[in-house]
Amino acid sequence: MREAYHKELESISEALVEMANLVGSAMGRATGALLDTDLRLAESVIDTEGQVEELQRNLEEQAIAVLARQQPVATDLRVVVTSLRMSADLERCGVLAQHVAKLARRRHPQHAVPRDLRRTILEMGQLAQRLMAQAAEVLITQDVDAALQLERDDDRMDELHRMIFQHLMDERWHHGVETAVDVTLVGRYYERFADHAVSIARRVVYLVTGEHADDYLPDTPVIH
Amino acid sequence: MREAYHKELESISEALVEMANLVGSAMGRATGALLDTDLRLAESVIDTEGQVEELQRNLEEQAIAVLARQQPVATDLRVVVTSLRMSADLERCGVLAQHVAKLARRRHPQHAVPRDLRRTILEMGQLAQRLMAQAAEVLITQDVDAALQLERDDDRMDELHRMIFQHLMDERWHHGVETAVDVTLVGRYYERFADHAVSIARRVVYLVTGEHADDYLPDTPVIH
Repeated sequence: MREAYHKELESISEALVEMANLVGSAMGRATGALLDTDLRLAESVIDTEGQVEELQRNLEEQAIAVLARQQPVATDLRVVVTSLRMSADLERCGVLAQHVAKLARRRHPQHAVPRDLRRTILEMGQLAQRLMAQAAEVLITQDVDAALQLERDDDRMDELHRMIFQHLMDERWHHGVETAVDVTLVGRYYERFADHAVSIARRVVYLVTGEHADDYLPDTPVIH
Repeated sequence: MREAYHKELESISEALVEMANLVGSAMGRATGALLDTDLRLAESVIDTEGQVEELQRNLEEQAIAVLARQQPVATDLRVVVTSLRMSADLERCGVLAQHVAKLARRRHPQHAVPRDLRRTILEMGQLAQRLMAQAAEVLITQDVDAALQLERDDDRMDELHRMIFQHLMDERWHHGVETAVDVTLVGRYYERFADHAVSIARRVVYLVTGEHADDYLPDTPVIH
């Protein structure tokens, strides 16, 4: 009985890691499709529509089954409840990757992102993917330091997001309104994606320490 | 024991309705602040920062306590798990209302929304608030028809959102890039807010019928 129980908890945790890998990879390909105007790559992301939602539904059913059969308490209960919340974050990340891929498809064979912003968007895309990989790692290791580091790494995303706005507001902007709208939305998709990765890491901090990351952070020396 | 149990479930449901009312009202005021460039109204929304998050945390703790103490199964278990997901939707709606209010404050005393888009944004704001009120109602009544109606009413939001984009892409757009960025973001905030209200209604449909709204909808006559 005990063993079956832990297998079930483990399987939920594995499902989360699988979702994180899936949406991380999807966002990586979506970024490639966007910057290389690669229609087939965009389609490969769009074709996964529904896949993350299905994983999410399965995970929710699994969690409900564990709650009903095993009636966990204390930490195990928190782990299951938190998994539900994390799976919602990951589901949303899948949608955001889809949004990026659909924008690439909508503008194909044109570039949605003008040349002078491509480096910034590339960095955002790579950072988004890396943050999600870190979140998956944190889910496995439950490493609080790594989780807090993720939050600091996300500062760079905010910086990149601000750079995009500065660029948009620059009087020399000459790419027109449609491109401004595209860049505004795409910047937001990456930023939200990263936020969800951070949210997952914060929840691990809470599970492990019993303290919300907000309260926990100030006492932690920042490692550069 | 039984009675205490149902009181606890009821109290979770009441907390959800309270959150829905709070974020609906916040979005209503944020829209007023945005369209009337009313700084004090904007501040009144911004001042509630953290309030919805706190309600969400409390609700999560309450739900965990119910799961631990009462170990609900079957429908009751689904109700508690679904409440957790709904509270996450509502927390996000609170953030979106804040975003609208902060935009109003950032552009004050200027208008963030140009005159020719104000009617569209007003309708989006009112619709967002109405959809959230309907979601709160559905939480109380568990009325499946009302829940499905909410989904259809949201079609108008998508239409308004498309109208904004058409307006932005119009060659006669003369409000500059900054305003285009503002309008793009604000349109997205309303649309996402409405999506969350719809998501809550869909979850009620699932709780009551055992079928996902997607599968349930096609057989339902659309009432105009």
